Amino acid sequence: MEVYHLYSGGKDSSLAAWILQKLGYEVKLVTISFGLLDNWKYAKETADRLGFNHEVVVLGREILEEAAEMCIRDGHPSNAIQFIHEKALEEIASRKDVERISDGTRRDDRVPFLDLRRTRSLEDRFNVQYIRPLLGLGYKTIRELAEKLFIIEIRESEKLEKSDYEVELRHLLRLRGIDPLTIFPKRHYQSRVLGWKKQDL
Amino acid sequence: MEVYHLYSGGKDSSLAAWILQKLGYEVKLVTISFGLLDNWKYAKETADRLGFNHEVVVLGREILEEAAEMCIRDGHPSNAIQFIHEKALEEIASRKDVERISDGTRRDDRVPFLDLRRTRSLEDRFNVQYIRPLLGLGYKTIRELAEKLFIIEIRESEKLEKSDYEVELRHLLRLRGIDPLTIFPKRHYQSRVLGWKKQDL
Repeated sequence: MEVYHLYSGGKDSSLAAWILQKLGYEVKLVTISFGLLDNWKYAKETADRLGFNHEVVVLGREILEEAAEMCIRDGHPSNAIQFIHEKALEEIASRKDVERISDGTRRDDRVPFLDLRRTRSLEDRFNVQYIRPLLGLGYKTIRELAEKLFIIEIRESEKLEKSDYEVELRHLLRLRGIDPLTIFPKRHYQSRVLGWKKQDL
Repeated sequence: MEVYHLYSGGKDSSLAAWILQKLGYEVKLVTISFGLLDNWKYAKETADRLGFNHEVVVLGREILEEAAEMCIRDGHPSNAIQFIHEKALEEIASRKDVERISDGTRRDDRVPFLDLRRTRSLEDRFNVQYIRPLLGLGYKTIRELAEKLFIIEIRESEKLEKSDYEVELRHLLRLRGIDPLTIFPKRHYQSRVLGWKKQDL
């Protein structure tokens, strides 16, 4: 049972990958890049340290550009992040060999998040199973599990070496002369997993 | 990490129990009874066969009576099932030694189902983690996992030896001279787990 799991190297997508592996899935980590920066390498490094199979999938630059325009128009990044995430899921789901896709989205997340209608639409259009191991877990449960499993580094988003969509999105905004801090929340802490504390609880 | 998991002996609550165990939780199965019938024994039997710790918790008869009135008033059992499930979760969550509660509710369920507001309210009121291992899984994923893990018997609800709320609710309606088939859907197939096919995938 192979599953292709969208992976940033953060606490949530790492915990979701661990759960999938525990359930017996053969987990293939996938990190999205738009080819603008090489920040995918942080996810790769974490994947290697955790012992997971990992690949980088490059999405078309026009998706990032459309997302940047959404950010500028909206004055906040929610719709842009949602847009990129759906494109990423669709890209993986559309591959011929893929029967199962997954991500680390949580119960308490606002974006990226697929509601029931979009979830079923994704599964039906691409004939895949879309598995979200963290959807039934609250922040306390996720924190408890992640802190037992992983060595985690927590920093402000601007400073963290990380492989999520935000990094290239912020970079593209800067290239267009826009300060990302006018669009992204001022203090937004994010996590990066550095390795295992232990692999079994 | 102990978790108290609401358990009917069906496919969904058995799969959720298996997931919790795989993640390293010490799983305590709890079957609800209103003391009207002894149908809790089917869940106990399945729990024994699967090797899980199991207890029966008796809820006040007035809850079942209120649920029966809801059924009669509504002409369908949705609100009644939701009502009983919330009372069951609250009963377990209110116990002094309980830090984590769980159930087998699914992404595609309409009832019983706690939305985000009710979920957070439950966690905050009783200071517990409420864990739903199946919430991020679609019916295809659940079927694939359950069929690999369990020997499953599928029958119409009226005929199945099972330990869910419906059985005592139907019985109480009959005692009041009401045919449950005027309230419950005509053809409603439910599952009972009879044992392991295998314990690891």
